[in-house]
Amino acid sequence: MPDSASPIGIFDSGIGGLTVLREIARALPAEDLLYFGDTARVPYGIKSPPTIIAFSEQNCRFLLRRAPKLLVVACNTASAAALPHLRETFDVPILGVVEPGARAAVAATRNRRVGIIGTEATIRSRAYLDCIRALDPGIALIDRACPLFVPLVEEGRDCDDPIVRLAAKEYLRPLIEFGVDTVVLGCTHYPLLKDALRGVLGRAVGIVDSAEETARATGETLDRLGLRRTGAASAVYRYYVTDNPLRFASVGSRIMGNIVEHVERVDPAAVARDE
Amino acid sequence: MPDSASPIGIFDSGIGGLTVLREIARALPAEDLLYFGDTARVPYGIKSPPTIIAFSEQNCRFLLRRAPKLLVVACNTASAAALPHLRETFDVPILGVVEPGARAAVAATRNRRVGIIGTEATIRSRAYLDCIRALDPGIALIDRACPLFVPLVEEGRDCDDPIVRLAAKEYLRPLIEFGVDTVVLGCTHYPLLKDALRGVLGRAVGIVDSAEETARATGETLDRLGLRRTGAASAVYRYYVTDNPLRFASVGSRIMGNIVEHVERVDPAAVARDE
Repeated sequence: MPDSASPIGIFDSGIGGLTVLREIARALPAEDLLYFGDTARVPYGIKSPPTIIAFSEQNCRFLLRRAPKLLVVACNTASAAALPHLRETFDVPILGVVEPGARAAVAATRNRRVGIIGTEATIRSRAYLDCIRALDPGIALIDRACPLFVPLVEEGRDCDDPIVRLAAKEYLRPLIEFGVDTVVLGCTHYPLLKDALRGVLGRAVGIVDSAEETARATGETLDRLGLRRTGAASAVYRYYVTDNPLRFASVGSRIMGNIVEHVERVDPAAVARDE
Repeated sequence: MPDSASPIGIFDSGIGGLTVLREIARALPAEDLLYFGDTARVPYGIKSPPTIIAFSEQNCRFLLRRAPKLLVVACNTASAAALPHLRETFDVPILGVVEPGARAAVAATRNRRVGIIGTEATIRSRAYLDCIRALDPGIALIDRACPLFVPLVEEGRDCDDPIVRLAAKEYLRPLIEFGVDTVVLGCTHYPLLKDALRGVLGRAVGIVDSAEETARATGETLDRLGLRRTGAASAVYRYYVTDNPLRFASVGSRIMGNIVEHVERVDPAAVARDE
């Protein structure tokens, strides 16, 4: 039976979920963290719901064999497509990134006009729209898929890059015309582009970072369940990826702002067979 | 035993290989074509050689159960990483896209300065460099990964798009400074950006399209083996994808310039288990 000393398990389709791990590590520095990145099958954002659900279930089984006390689906696409299925299937608390982000947006907006940006699959799922409408049907919503942002981040481009700025301007134009005062970053890669997005949106528009909100929700859930780890134990972070541990460590170190170690490659065929 | 009436099997990591199918269909209009696109695990270009080899072998087994007379690896990344392994493993003629492109570049260059562009994995593999050097060690070579080109094409952007033009200018600058007179498009998506690339490179630089060259090599190989189909039979094209047949049909119709029909989804887990 997992207890407060058990680790938190986090999975993502690839590298982007490290922005969620980073915020959880900041908010909950005593917790051990296990990260699973499905880098052999990344990205999920252009795939179909049945495929995303099947992959997500396999990723959870992988982490559950390491006895975590709580799972975080640190991938917006997987949260949007698979969270209800995962919660029905597994007997462990599971948090996604969509609901914390949606809640924060509802709390933040003053003019009740909110924009959501994400991958193709996240936007197509309408998960943020549904979640925000369930919380407050009176909020006017606009969303937009930004398929270039993930490859731009993974290529190592920063917020001053001219292609990043041009893409941000193009993708965000309809949100600005719609008059949003709050924009939800509905993809784990997007916090790394925050300065570029702020440059286009202006200081008057608030940016909701789902990673930060998910870290906050994780702490609240652990407190509610009496599972928060206390004391000054030094936390251990372990990373499992289905491909390319070296690329993960190098792109990951850039995302985390410090060295990513203990990256282990696991066989994607074994994950697919639930071994 | 396959004979001249048997189909040609073509596989790609996803949609891009349709540029190769399109050229084969133009060059060999009597041939039946089977296309397998591994859209559940696309893209291969950011993955490691062992993973690419394992996926490629599974894709070949899928096509071989449909008794083709010849296989075409219509993916530069898979050709670069897996072709020797596939040729050792399977008892059927197998063509890749790298060697035909490399041969055409060697034949085309006048000033003996050639540039190659492709995905991260294709460039990292050095497959084009090795192949061109083996044909003519005196040619000066420069290569460059262009990771944004695939997502730009898949998003449906065309050659007039400002982001496409900005990315093309940035990626090609070192090739122009190097003084190339020939550039090899080492990725199946890139022919769709040919006009944008030509706009940056200028008319004096020749562009080698591996898809066209591979179609030519396919015809030559069939002739040599006495397996070319003749007569006026109406050719049948069938498409199998591991995910998202609707997205494949819509992006695919844009690539092919006409409607893509007969798209069937096959279970990626069954392909991974060689079923």
